[in-house]
Amino acid sequence: MSRIIIGVMGPGNAAPEEYSTAEELGKKIAEAGWVLLTGGRNAGVMSAASHGAKQAGGLTVGVLPGDDRSDMSPDVDIPVVTGIGSARNNVNVLSSDLVFACGVGMGTISEVLLAAKAGKQVILLNQTPASKKFLEDFNSDRIHFASGVSGAIQKARQLL
Amino acid sequence: MSRIIIGVMGPGNAAPEEYSTAEELGKKIAEAGWVLLTGGRNAGVMSAASHGAKQAGGLTVGVLPGDDRSDMSPDVDIPVVTGIGSARNNVNVLSSDLVFACGVGMGTISEVLLAAKAGKQVILLNQTPASKKFLEDFNSDRIHFASGVSGAIQKARQLL
Amino acid sequence: MSRIIIGVMGPGNAAPEEYSTAEELGKKIAEAGWVLLTGGRNAGVMSAASHGAKQAGGLTVGVLPGDDRSDMSPDVDIPVVTGIGSARNNVNVLSSDLVFACGVGMGTISEVLLAAKAGKQVILLNQTPASKKFLEDFNSDRIHFASGVSGAIQKARQLL
Amino acid sequence: MSRIIIGVMGPGNAAPEEYSTAEELGKKIAEAGWVLLTGGRNAGVMSAASHGAKQAGGLTVGVLPGDDRSDMSPDVDIPVVTGIGSARNNVNVLSSDLVFACGVGMGTISEVLLAAKAGKQVILLNQTPASKKFLEDFNSDRIHFASGVSGAIQKARQLL
Repeated sequence: MSRIIIGVMGPGNAAPEEYSTAEELGKKIAEAGWVLLTGGRNAGVMSAASHGAKQAGGLTVGVLPGDDRSDMSPDVDIPVVTGIGSARNNVNVLSSDLVFACGVGMGTISEVLLAAKAGKQVILLNQTPASKKFLEDFNSDRIHFASGVSGAIQKARQLL
Repeated sequence: MSRIIIGVMGPGNAAPEEYSTAEELGKKIAEAGWVLLTGGRNAGVMSAASHGAKQAGGLTVGVLPGDDRSDMSPDVDIPVVTGIGSARNNVNVLSSDLVFACGVGMGTISEVLLAAKAGKQVILLNQTPASKKFLEDFNSDRIHFASGVSGAIQKARQLL
Repeated sequence: MSRIIIGVMGPGNAAPEEYSTAEELGKKIAEAGWVLLTGGRNAGVMSAASHGAKQAGGLTVGVLPGDDRSDMSPDVDIPVVTGIGSARNNVNVLSSDLVFACGVGMGTISEVLLAAKAGKQVILLNQTPASKKFLEDFNSDRIHFASGVSGAIQKARQLL
Repeated sequence: MSRIIIGVMGPGNAAPEEYSTAEELGKKIAEAGWVLLTGGRNAGVMSAASHGAKQAGGLTVGVLPGDDRSDMSPDVDIPVVTGIGSARNNVNVLSSDLVFACGVGMGTISEVLLAAKAGKQVILLNQTPASKKFLEDFNSDRIHFASGVSGAIQKARQLL
């Protein structure tokens, strides 16, 4: 039977707060026995989450946009080299049982909407008032907000 | 030399106002001598824009998500059958010289953000106050708003 | 109603004979009123077929692997910028009503097999005895051989 | 540091001999401590290799073509749900450090050629005289033949 796979999405160019949230999320995901899936690059939220997961002895999958491993986080155990560029965001979404999103970058919110549209549960952290208001207007039962990592993990347990 | 290609994005499940905006946009795009590119399905904004463009004698490209033409708008001249599902949104974005977006559906805003992130100019119509506020917060010089089709076309001429 | 779309596949690094076959094929495709679809790059068979089609006043679609038009043949009217690398071969195959293949390069034969597997009719030119023997062993009613361009076009008319 | 990932490719509709070769390959891959990567479906060579690897306590990745897990082999630990159809063959190839191919189906040989073109080492089993002759004609230093599983594994150790 396949493992539970949890996606963590967020900016490659992350703010310090987003970075530390992602690292703690990665750690908690590993401690829960879930597999972490990220965009795999050695940057920002992807890198932080993978690092956190490895510190806790977890298993990490990185779904890379390029056609080799040149830009991979050293904390990725299983690189999936897609060669399909930003279209790999859809692979991240479809492969995850549930998605966490840290931050409000263009790419991140684009992926949040893609995930909710594909029927996935998404839990958001580090949102701004404007992004929260905008996302709440969709009235989606698949978009959730959490103010911290432990609340986010608790919410995930309810949804899985 | 390649033709100028203008993308029109918007919900498959469009409101009447979005539908009529898209149809008029398609017509004006064809009259300008530009090639129209849409998501190709026989639904909502895609279908309306293609219909408008064909009425004005234009050329229409439809970038389909599925692996055949079963769900294609009858107004598509050149179907591109990608077989890559929602990942084809990125093909739409990369293939367009400029993107118009009608409406505020999850898929549409996801594509707007993907386009702006990829460096494309995007002109939005039929926005809500919350979506406008949210998108303005990115302070992007690639995201523009227009209140009607003629203003949108005029803006496009400036940006091309 | 959508136009008839004919794919021409072959090596980017083409031998002179493959190049001239592709150019003549492109010309005949345009003269038949069909739309030519190629891999779009400014190289080998793709470039030759597009050049032939434009000389005869045809319409050319180029399905590019990269995420911009930097490597595009100047004879492409409608660039489709996929950003999905070699995975775009499948887009070429699915988008074509029928596929011509010139030559025996690894990429070309890979695409021939992909096309036949996807249920497309494929007409091959410039084959070697070993490639012909190998392909005949599949006993596929979708793989055809032609010894010259006029025979290939005649075969295409029967199959369409 | 990332794990060594070994791809096993072959027909979904496998002959008994191909099935047993794939199962034994999967077992030996797991025993070597490598991660097995397949096309993930519950069919033929993919399924057999995954089954063999799980019997030996290995870790299995399945790169699925569809947009959900409905057709997944029960022996896949980590499903990667691509939603990009046959274009996922390129993901299999790019993600593997080395590729084994069992059999001579159209899809299999298409993938072998794609892999060799992408610079990957490929080891083939269960070939016919015609497929062997055809593939040898490329004079590629990336295409290798083995007559049995232990020879194939030994060859893989030399190439990695």
